[in-house]
Amino acid sequence: MLVDNVNYRTISPAKDLSYIQIIDQTCLPFEFKLKRLESFEEVVESIKFMRVRGAPLIGVAAAYGIALAMNQDTSDQSLELSKRALINSRPTAVNLVWAVNSIYNKLVSVIETERISTAWRLAQIMSDEDVDKNKLIGKYGSELIMKKENSKDVINILTHCNAGWLATIDYGTALSPIYKAVNEGLNIHVWVDETRPRNQGLNLTAWELSQAKIKHTVISDNTGGLLMQQGRIDYIFVGADRISMDGQVCNKIGTYLKAIAANIHNIPFYVAAPLSTVDNKFRGTDYVFEIECRSPDEIMKMKGRDALGNITEIRLGESPAYNPAFDITPSKYVSKIICEKGVFNPQDIGGLIS
Amino acid sequence: MLVDNVNYRTISPAKDLSYIQIIDQTCLPFEFKLKRLESFEEVVESIKFMRVRGAPLIGVAAAYGIALAMNQDTSDQSLELSKRALINSRPTAVNLVWAVNSIYNKLVSVIETERISTAWRLAQIMSDEDVDKNKLIGKYGSELIMKKENSKDVINILTHCNAGWLATIDYGTALSPIYKAVNEGLNIHVWVDETRPRNQGLNLTAWELSQAKIKHTVISDNTGGLLMQQGRIDYIFVGADRISMDGQVCNKIGTYLKAIAANIHNIPFYVAAPLSTVDNKFRGTDYVFEIECRSPDEIMKMKGRDALGNITEIRLGESPAYNPAFDITPSKYVSKIICEKGVFNPQDIGGLIS
Repeated sequence: MLVDNVNYRTISPAKDLSYIQIIDQTCLPFEFKLKRLESFEEVVESIKFMRVRGAPLIGVAAAYGIALAMNQDTSDQSLELSKRALINSRPTAVNLVWAVNSIYNKLVSVIETERISTAWRLAQIMSDEDVDKNKLIGKYGSELIMKKENSKDVINILTHCNAGWLATIDYGTALSPIYKAVNEGLNIHVWVDETRPRNQGLNLTAWELSQAKIKHTVISDNTGGLLMQQGRIDYIFVGADRISMDGQVCNKIGTYLKAIAANIHNIPFYVAAPLSTVDNKFRGTDYVFEIECRSPDEIMKMKGRDALGNITEIRLGESPAYNPAFDITPSKYVSKIICEKGVFNPQDIGGLIS
Repeated sequence: MLVDNVNYRTISPAKDLSYIQIIDQTCLPFEFKLKRLESFEEVVESIKFMRVRGAPLIGVAAAYGIALAMNQDTSDQSLELSKRALINSRPTAVNLVWAVNSIYNKLVSVIETERISTAWRLAQIMSDEDVDKNKLIGKYGSELIMKKENSKDVINILTHCNAGWLATIDYGTALSPIYKAVNEGLNIHVWVDETRPRNQGLNLTAWELSQAKIKHTVISDNTGGLLMQQGRIDYIFVGADRISMDGQVCNKIGTYLKAIAANIHNIPFYVAAPLSTVDNKFRGTDYVFEIECRSPDEIMKMKGRDALGNITEIRLGESPAYNPAFDITPSKYVSKIICEKGVFNPQDIGGLIS
């Protein structure tokens, strides 16, 4: 996508394959900063510290992480070590496990001298495929957005967190249908949940949409219920970090509250994600995976510009805080799941990968 | 209630009735600061700027505002002017209108020379009655909190915004039953919604509970849904800014999302408020009153301590933002309303004042 009219992907490999370049998302919206990662350890740090975040992007970043590990050392031990470190860098997104295992499984059967070139080739394929999948999600998803009878009437879409191009390699998942529909001339306005505590909506989604010149308004996460009551939300589009075989959606904390409100107000609640987000072990309610709890400091600290324009971090208080990062929306509250193969009832999503 | 072991009310009149003393709530949790208000204009400013906030407290503050106006000028014109300015200082809380009209209606029929003493007496009565009502709300509300079979098991209560003693003259509405139950030895832990955008949960409720040494944890407003899924919330207690005759509850934005989640998870959702919160014109869905929209800056700016310990305000971004302050929870999602007369089905609340 365009940033100040220059085209970017969230990750691009150096021509000589000595490093990858990422957009350091912890600096947005204040600063658009590119960062070189030259080792798999730096990739692990970037995933942990959320310089790169968003389930699809984490997956591809980890794939490049393995390639960087091969640059450093092509041995089985290095392969094993980097795989484990990358998988453990964040616990919830299943795309991460999928991406790392998929590269790992191919590399273990390749002789050491071939591993560097193979790893970079596989990571590049995965990156390109992510872009292709998101374009398809955009195509299928945009077909769900109906023109209003009076084309001057605005179509209002709510989104939570950031599932835009910054959460992927390009185009995004939940925002891809919006980009596509706007390109086709639909009159869309996006309500952006600020998405406490890390403010991915305010920091990333609003920034993305302003770069793309799409009308948008930031709201507190508390506001969606009122807007639904008032008939001011036509659709909700969100991404996903892990989807069960029977269509339960693990996504950013707060997604569930919006899904149940949408259900009450008969507002379509769409989840957009590549099929790599589906966890084939996750079905029903017995299967337990770790819902990541992040630092209480994410609630108690905030970053912004002070009166002099300097980026400053402030502490909001001294209270104990609890900060789980995801919740799980049962499939009955999900209208459709949009993936690279089309639009499906949530209960049918497992059938596409089994 | 105690602050550093000294007993305070949120408003206290000077002995010579020349001013009132308030707790400037915009300084909390960083600083406990008392402020003198010597004119009704200062009361209007304090209500608008939310130095005093919370529906019951706004009502009593406005009553004292009329008394201060009488100190300045006892004429009919002064009475009329101060009434209008106070009623217009914030639009949503019906207690404000109730308190001002109730004092006004008595004063107009009193000769000018009696107005000062009468106004102060009426304001003092209203203030004392608020305390008495909140004690009763505490008594009736605490009876709804059941001991767990194993008394070591914690009773988890979620609250949204601040409906504690800081929102009233003393004891609070939603928190009054909690203070009472803890006093009686119940093992209670409070989940405190931070309550964006003004963070009344983080700034005020958490501060109140820590002063009272009650266990509590601040969470983002997005978190309640997950906690309900996990069975980690036993009760929800909130306050109200306006209640319809048929039990619809207008309260801090985000209340509605918690109420519908509570309904799905069969968690009791209790609203605690004095009967002065009931609006006798508000019934059904035809009646429209203004839902206050506050400055987008409340979303885009945040106050806290910088690295040097100084209180600093930062700007989070430059996006357009929208900031309605309240939503309306239909009565079917309200388990009970607790008022000074007892515990009632929401649909029956109007019957108590008609």
